[in-house]
Amino acid sequence: MPLSSLSSLSSLSSSSPTQPHTSTATPTMVGSIASSTFPANVGIHALEFYFPSKFVDQTELEQFDNVSAGKYTIGLGQTQMAVCDDREDVNSISLTVVQNLVEKHNISFKDIGYLEVGTESIIDKSKSVKTVLMSLFEESGNHDVEGIDTKNACYGGTASVFNAVNWVESSSWDGRYALVVAADIASYAEGPARPTGGAGAVAVLIGPNAPLVFDQGVRATHMNHLWDFYKPELASEYPTVDGHFSNTCYIRSVDACYSLFTKKFSKRYSPNPEQLIKSQDLDHVVFHAPNCKLVQKAYGRMAYNDMLQDPENELYASVKEYAKFAHTEESYYDKGLERAMMQFTKAEYQKKVIPSLYAATNVGNMYTASVWGCLSSLLSATADEDILNKRVGLFSYGSGSAATFFSLKVVASTEKFRETLQIKTRLDQRVKVTPQVFAELLKLREETALLKDYNPIGDISTLAKGTYYLKRIDEKFRRTYGRA
Amino acid sequence: MPLSSLSSLSSLSSSSPTQPHTSTATPTMVGSIASSTFPANVGIHALEFYFPSKFVDQTELEQFDNVSAGKYTIGLGQTQMAVCDDREDVNSISLTVVQNLVEKHNISFKDIGYLEVGTESIIDKSKSVKTVLMSLFEESGNHDVEGIDTKNACYGGTASVFNAVNWVESSSWDGRYALVVAADIASYAEGPARPTGGAGAVAVLIGPNAPLVFDQGVRATHMNHLWDFYKPELASEYPTVDGHFSNTCYIRSVDACYSLFTKKFSKRYSPNPEQLIKSQDLDHVVFHAPNCKLVQKAYGRMAYNDMLQDPENELYASVKEYAKFAHTEESYYDKGLERAMMQFTKAEYQKKVIPSLYAATNVGNMYTASVWGCLSSLLSATADEDILNKRVGLFSYGSGSAATFFSLKVVASTEKFRETLQIKTRLDQRVKVTPQVFAELLKLREETALLKDYNPIGDISTLAKGTYYLKRIDEKFRRTYGRA
Repeated sequence: MPLSSLSSLSSLSSSSPTQPHTSTATPTMVGSIASSTFPANVGIHALEFYFPSKFVDQTELEQFDNVSAGKYTIGLGQTQMAVCDDREDVNSISLTVVQNLVEKHNISFKDIGYLEVGTESIIDKSKSVKTVLMSLFEESGNHDVEGIDTKNACYGGTASVFNAVNWVESSSWDGRYALVVAADIASYAEGPARPTGGAGAVAVLIGPNAPLVFDQGVRATHMNHLWDFYKPELASEYPTVDGHFSNTCYIRSVDACYSLFTKKFSKRYSPNPEQLIKSQDLDHVVFHAPNCKLVQKAYGRMAYNDMLQDPENELYASVKEYAKFAHTEESYYDKGLERAMMQFTKAEYQKKVIPSLYAATNVGNMYTASVWGCLSSLLSATADEDILNKRVGLFSYGSGSAATFFSLKVVASTEKFRETLQIKTRLDQRVKVTPQVFAELLKLREETALLKDYNPIGDISTLAKGTYYLKRIDEKFRRTYGRA
Repeated sequence: MPLSSLSSLSSLSSSSPTQPHTSTATPTMVGSIASSTFPANVGIHALEFYFPSKFVDQTELEQFDNVSAGKYTIGLGQTQMAVCDDREDVNSISLTVVQNLVEKHNISFKDIGYLEVGTESIIDKSKSVKTVLMSLFEESGNHDVEGIDTKNACYGGTASVFNAVNWVESSSWDGRYALVVAADIASYAEGPARPTGGAGAVAVLIGPNAPLVFDQGVRATHMNHLWDFYKPELASEYPTVDGHFSNTCYIRSVDACYSLFTKKFSKRYSPNPEQLIKSQDLDHVVFHAPNCKLVQKAYGRMAYNDMLQDPENELYASVKEYAKFAHTEESYYDKGLERAMMQFTKAEYQKKVIPSLYAATNVGNMYTASVWGCLSSLLSATADEDILNKRVGLFSYGSGSAATFFSLKVVASTEKFRETLQIKTRLDQRVKVTPQVFAELLKLREETALLKDYNPIGDISTLAKGTYYLKRIDEKFRRTYGRA
């Protein structure tokens, strides 16, 4: 396939992204940064996305759970859900996604100078997943790799991406790539939240002169102290969760982050800073997707925020009656408002959001990996002509809570993303299990996840080639892994 | 007390450290950083250090544990150890240290744009301590604060400091301070490791034009996959630990990090890059201190590395016989080598390292807070004439493992650090408990730490004024705090 004329900007090789700026630093003992050498256009060079090779069908799950038809598939917007047995843990899925990225993109472990892992699938309170990943670096002899694990619900991967971008833009940068891994296994106790599980891992390779460039100075964050979803029962994989409250917290964060983003973006980039940008100005919007229905509501809520800025505009004639709510408490619970905004944005949602949700509806929630899995879906499914020179808005939410709205621009061909991600093809190759088997495998995980002196029993023959799996937890809780 | 002529550089006010560089950014949609506005001299503006108000005496503990006199006090170099009851958790000690820093230095919560927490005292697998700290920001209305929690054993605080420095030096910086909290409660099951517990929290305020400036481009990191100390038993506060192996891993990391540091430092700052700097060129060295004896061995090991570079130098006549070991396996276990290097560095150790160990010997291990508590000790105890224009080397180690050797230079008066830290005075005001009470309080923590619907029973009258304490864990595991 011919590369577009811009693709050379995004090509990866086994050499580092560019020369380190240290080579031109002045030899002062304490001094200012050699600023002329700071890298530009820092962004994403490559994405790799791992999801389990087994899934359960959500229609079958509705029948098995004896709930009304459509409760999961229409009510939550979920089609299929990834299933893990006792062969997978946060270490194994992280090992898989890193090794696959390095192989597919033919880079050397020596070329990576920063590696952070965002996860809330804690299987050790002290040892980081990052240190387990250092086993992949052993042969290269490269141990000089900064960054460890980050933690706050589904937000960890995003926090690590920001830390990685900052590293590349700071005096700490030594010319090498930064790599971020977002990885989680999301599972719930029996009950209404169980169909919102899933599992996945995404690796994000970051450096200067990238095909996907993060917009500078526009990230808008909202963090506060909430108890919507948390994991105080440390010996259990399952969260303590108030699903309805958590959905509301998510939408409140959309309000706070998106409205601050429009102000920051307009101040920085608009010829008329008073004229705030609107959701229409974003070509695609990618969300953290705990379920796909909530994403649709969130996109409607963005348009609601736009409307509140300009309620008399005739564009909003069909929904302006809801301006009366503004951001009051009532506005978060009014079903009429929610329906009206989803209807109002229906066509744009199909075009700008749906392409990013293919993995989310077929894999389920992946916690930290979710928003990055959605970005992977968008890039895997979109031709250059529909994405080149387009701007993508991204919303990341982690309960508890931490949320950020930010954006990036696609400045070079994304052909390499399509070639390497192949999400639809790989999803089609998975093995379906029955809801009964799904329940049994979750039970197996419940009973064995934190044992010592344990040999996992899950069938490794169904694993996709290249997948790492748990071989053994020894009598001192030490875990070892094999590769399919 | 008169301020030195340089002190204005380090004075804190309620305004932000300097103007954000965004004000001069060019309005390009995707483009290079407005590099002329990047901040210089990024470093530490303030430190706040919290330790519990109760302690146990290590001599009394030796008698209580029926071990030989001197086993803890001489063998480990530990004098006293902090004791927590069920009123303290990682959230409460973090709340205390942040609120105290903000009050002592008269800054506004609006002036903080980045906040990360490093800890391995996980009491929730999903919700970050950072989000609990956001409750302190509520009144200010500032929710736009990036950063979450980081995790890898004792290294988390250091990882967060590096992330904070990078944030200030990147296009993400908006002119506000970055704040890092390193906080842990270190306790061990009954047995030989128990006397190496402790507890503490340090807050590190970071921005440009600081009195303590981090040297750029010289950080030397060594990370690898080890099982020396980890916490796979999630419902327990206690680690799985091989103490002897962990000590060796620590010393190996000293070798790897220090030798890479000397190369990076010399390449960057020396007129003759072939002439590596030596430990004598550092005016002070601050270590992560799991126990004070290991720090003494580590300082000796640095000199051993120096000697291996220049074994024929007559300076090393008394120890050159050990050059035969180089970095072989044997060298880590040879007691003669260890003793000889401790003897060789005895005078320098007293002068350059001991002042940083006052809190460590009297509080114990504080995991992530340890190296920052040691830096606090050094600054609290050292007059301007002994620290101004001096360079401090720092070694941070976290099991599993992650380690970095880095350095900073003191470029302005540290009077404000002495005034606000007052470590000796505050240590002297603590309440002593007997080893029996210490054992009972640890038992109380063991039995209650992760309960729901629990009202802590610890005596709050002994808490220092301003200390946050756990009031209740409700029926949904939600924790609430009061302030003494």
